Amino acid sequence: MIALSLIPRDEFERAGALDDPLPLLADMCRLNALTAVKRAGSGHLGSTFSSLDVVVHLLWRELNVRELGWQHAERDVFFSSKGHDVPGLYAALHALGVIPAERLLRLRRLGGLDGHPDIGVPGIEANSGSLGMGISKGRGIAWAKRRLGRGGRVVVMTGDGELQEGQNWEALGSAAHQRIGNLWAIVDRNELQSDRRTEEILALGGLEEKLRSFGWNVETCDGHDHSELDGAFRRLAAAPSDVPKVLVANTIKGRGVSFMEHPAALQQGDGTYRWHAGAPDDEHFGRARDELLARIRARVPDLRLDDVAPLDESRSLEGEPESGISVRRGKVTSEYVAAAYGEELLELASRHPELVVLDADLASDCRIRPFELRHPDRFVENGIAEQDMVSMAAGLARQGLLPVVNSFASFLASRANEQIYNQTSEGTKVVYALHYAGLIPAGPGKSHQSIRDISLLGALPDVAIVQPANAAETRALLRWAVEETDATTAVRLAIGPSPRALALPAEDVRPGVASVLLHGGGPPLLAYGPVMINEALVAAELLAPRDVSVRVLAMPWLNRFDRGWLGDEIAVHDEVFVVEDHAPAGGLADALRRALDAAGASTRVTAFGVEGWPACGTPTEALRTHGLDGATLAGRIERVLSVAARS
Amino acid sequence: MIALSLIPRDEFERAGALDDPLPLLADMCRLNALTAVKRAGSGHLGSTFSSLDVVVHLLWRELNVRELGWQHAERDVFFSSKGHDVPGLYAALHALGVIPAERLLRLRRLGGLDGHPDIGVPGIEANSGSLGMGISKGRGIAWAKRRLGRGGRVVVMTGDGELQEGQNWEALGSAAHQRIGNLWAIVDRNELQSDRRTEEILALGGLEEKLRSFGWNVETCDGHDHSELDGAFRRLAAAPSDVPKVLVANTIKGRGVSFMEHPAALQQGDGTYRWHAGAPDDEHFGRARDELLARIRARVPDLRLDDVAPLDESRSLEGEPESGISVRRGKVTSEYVAAAYGEELLELASRHPELVVLDADLASDCRIRPFELRHPDRFVENGIAEQDMVSMAAGLARQGLLPVVNSFASFLASRANEQIYNQTSEGTKVVYALHYAGLIPAGPGKSHQSIRDISLLGALPDVAIVQPANAAETRALLRWAVEETDATTAVRLAIGPSPRALALPAEDVRPGVASVLLHGGGPPLLAYGPVMINEALVAAELLAPRDVSVRVLAMPWLNRFDRGWLGDEIAVHDEVFVVEDHAPAGGLADALRRALDAAGASTRVTAFGVEGWPACGTPTEALRTHGLDGATLAGRIERVLSVAARS
Repeated sequence: MIALSLIPRDEFERAGALDDPLPLLADMCRLNALTAVKRAGSGHLGSTFSSLDVVVHLLWRELNVRELGWQHAERDVFFSSKGHDVPGLYAALHALGVIPAERLLRLRRLGGLDGHPDIGVPGIEANSGSLGMGISKGRGIAWAKRRLGRGGRVVVMTGDGELQEGQNWEALGSAAHQRIGNLWAIVDRNELQSDRRTEEILALGGLEEKLRSFGWNVETCDGHDHSELDGAFRRLAAAPSDVPKVLVANTIKGRGVSFMEHPAALQQGDGTYRWHAGAPDDEHFGRARDELLARIRARVPDLRLDDVAPLDESRSLEGEPESGISVRRGKVTSEYVAAAYGEELLELASRHPELVVLDADLASDCRIRPFELRHPDRFVENGIAEQDMVSMAAGLARQGLLPVVNSFASFLASRANEQIYNQTSEGTKVVYALHYAGLIPAGPGKSHQSIRDISLLGALPDVAIVQPANAAETRALLRWAVEETDATTAVRLAIGPSPRALALPAEDVRPGVASVLLHGGGPPLLAYGPVMINEALVAAELLAPRDVSVRVLAMPWLNRFDRGWLGDEIAVHDEVFVVEDHAPAGGLADALRRALDAAGASTRVTAFGVEGWPACGTPTEALRTHGLDGATLAGRIERVLSVAARS
Repeated sequence: MIALSLIPRDEFERAGALDDPLPLLADMCRLNALTAVKRAGSGHLGSTFSSLDVVVHLLWRELNVRELGWQHAERDVFFSSKGHDVPGLYAALHALGVIPAERLLRLRRLGGLDGHPDIGVPGIEANSGSLGMGISKGRGIAWAKRRLGRGGRVVVMTGDGELQEGQNWEALGSAAHQRIGNLWAIVDRNELQSDRRTEEILALGGLEEKLRSFGWNVETCDGHDHSELDGAFRRLAAAPSDVPKVLVANTIKGRGVSFMEHPAALQQGDGTYRWHAGAPDDEHFGRARDELLARIRARVPDLRLDDVAPLDESRSLEGEPESGISVRRGKVTSEYVAAAYGEELLELASRHPELVVLDADLASDCRIRPFELRHPDRFVENGIAEQDMVSMAAGLARQGLLPVVNSFASFLASRANEQIYNQTSEGTKVVYALHYAGLIPAGPGKSHQSIRDISLLGALPDVAIVQPANAAETRALLRWAVEETDATTAVRLAIGPSPRALALPAEDVRPGVASVLLHGGGPPLLAYGPVMINEALVAAELLAPRDVSVRVLAMPWLNRFDRGWLGDEIAVHDEVFVVEDHAPAGGLADALRRALDAAGASTRVTAFGVEGWPACGTPTEALRTHGLDGATLAGRIERVLSVAARS
């Protein structure tokens, strides 16, 4: 890996004492954020860079937190609603001495800095990462400040694409109605959302006019020009004290690194912006670093840099798993179940003219960009508005079309939950593709990790919930959902690479039946999805030489069970184990227990799920934290069986 | 009960042939809607009356459905997003021969007409009742029509208060962006929401300006003047074909009955509007009927009316419960747990200056109007915007306040689900009051009946979910939630009267412990909430003379169990029964099974829950439909025990 270095805190103090320090400080934060993201292997640079001049201006010039500190009741409260830009805020907080360098370098690692804002980190005022909640939350903080007679403004940074979420417009209306004058919003108007132009995805139109029509005091300026920012903030401060204020800061996504800057970067990417998420490769990292460094050294020729120590993985793991069993997880495969999903969608499209694909600005991640390009007339881009997308799908289905609705599981099953209920209550059929289901990847943090979606859809009558184990099963289950069942189906999909190649015994779809992956005489061990099936297999492999035998089953059916299968394969056992890629409540084990009790079976179900809040970190870190890595699972299974044997 | 009569269908045909028939037809529909609501004992007259001129104008003059019928692919699709106004639409559909008189008279009854729109009823194009989804759904239908080359417009009626839901603004933006020109919206701008002025609850401000800023073609007119409506629809039809269109129809809530009309009615109600929901008493019904009849007879002096047969309850019950046991449920008590909740909130307010109450335009139903009047400075009216309300509460809690958040369970737990996750992820404490939890009352239909809320909150780490059995326990649990626990608590509350007075053995709060209501030597029968506890007791009372003994437990803790209690009271039994006021998935029984399996117990849990979609009807009808009335429960329990005894 390329060598990394960090600008130490004292250099920021030196830079801060120069004339016109803000552009320089912003570039220095850019460089440190770049380093942190490169080290983490992921993060959102485009949005970090577009917002950094505003962030630096706020923290060094406008807000009172540098002076009062982050615990003072009268402090200005600043947070980012979009949350993508948090590497920049972390870099600024490091520069201000709030976050130590060691922690900045542990972005997206266990015990480090969450991939999206979390108040567990000093200087972070609000959890975000799921879009559109910030103005509402800021309204609450500002209302409380007013009631409690506390000074200080509340300043909420939002994205422009983020304004597609309807909750913003609820909050804009209520803040104006309630005359929350100590609430400021700043729109980082960088004109791009994930990887396309906002005007293309879902135009905001005359944004200032909209904001004014909702009763806010609106200012606009160049969000990279500190004298313009100064003027705009002065005008906002002079505006009537009982009117909420918003600054539309016109910015450039990727600002500060020429090849990441919009619009040039968009042209280079053939219409898609490459620097929204993810760390740059070594070459691009080097170019970006050199460009930033050159500009910084033009102001601070003798800039000192601290070398960044190489990653010491073992330090991040808090001890070995209790079982004492240790295992090295092998390399991942090149298989992505989501890619298979995207390919199968294309094949189904040719046979099913009624099939329509809906997206909420995650077309690349959801692997439906190929569908969009091939069938633009059957692809609906809804912007970041999951509720609107689902109710639109309900309307499409009422006209006989078959909508396939895509978003991340944590957003779709949760934010659009009531809309899904409404759609299914009409008896129509929709396929919901719940991408990024489960604990892994764990770097983005709890706003993105989806460990509740099965529970959120589980009480809907007539909805099938499935999660395929590999690419072939993904294709087969999608065909089943489109061609065979009349039910609305929710398909959970892992977003990362499959940890191992699984050969399932049968490729035909047998509703309610699991596939046996590892024959063994012992109790069944059920798991679903590529990640947890792998851990279950690791556990079984570790247990075998210890003369503990388990029978590993890949169970794609999360809320329905074939009666015969249940009787022959499960109910005959005293004990059955389930590894949940989900919270303990509302997952496969709960459904299995219901079915077993209904069948009069006395089988005991021991489930291992994601307890508490999902850990942020590497896959290894997160799995171990929750005791769901194969080695820990092996120990847990062994303990249950030995207790059972004694009783 | 006062004698009722209905205008038969042929009288509408006669009236339709007169000059200027639309105002007359609207009044005739008003009268029939009034009769249907009076017979149902509930319904929304204010909104029905404000929208009826528009509805009649659309159906008789503007749309092509009278001609093409409600199955034709080229038909104009018209539906109401707010759904409250459906008695008026039912009356119009009766007048057009789509719904027979017998069915119109079975409003809110099993096999009759749902309290909110449901596509199971002829002429109803979309399910609604939960607000804010209509424009999105209409966009879907209109998009599909365009894609499929089908003619016909899509016309969506919305309320004005309804526009507070952010989803509307998502849909307005996307429809304009996608140039869905065959989508029309009509805002029934009656200036009142539940029982207050929209401008007071959460001002819409310059509505036309907002709608224009979102890219729509906007017209405004008097929504009761048919020539103005004619002109407005002509202008919309002439507008550019690729721009969605909206008519702001200025209307009068309660229009057509002088004492129900805004603003007079608001003044008579001392600032609250009495005719939003509920049937008028005999005196007001008589006055309203006479006023409408006088106006109708001025045009049709020889108007014929059909007498309405008195209600024959038995006809509505599809046979006796299978068990053959029959039982008459006694009169309800005067106890409302929600009223006790409202009173206890007031008492807690005096000891807890940090306590703040939040409402989403359901202050009367949620029994927090007294709090609003006593503590206006600690009451936050958020309008119909549950997501904004919850995120605001998150902000309040971050400043050390204790927000108590109120709405109906079906809306709050579902629509604001992701916001609740975000709030709890910050480790703050909020009390969520989930009003109208459970199956009963069953008249409003599936949009309002909340049978999924436990499942929707069950996988949140650290959230306590409770449901009190009576007024005293309501007060005690609310005190516990406010004063004793650090956890965020969700308090489910029945909205109707308690069916029987329950004396709980202990009034102190013992987390995770049930109260024994009926000692018996047999298996435990757990239930929660006043409604299902009553049915459980009825079941036990019916079983006792048959020598079947069960031990009835009121279990207010839906997701936590005291270890000792679980061991001593539950795990010692082979069999335990649970009556869920919830779907079978995700309720108390699932949590109990998890706890029992974790404790190594082999107790079998048999749960009786609300299977499928919740039935619309009287409490008796709905309970019997789901096999949850005491008599049916007794038979179900007896069967399980006899099977167990044989095996």
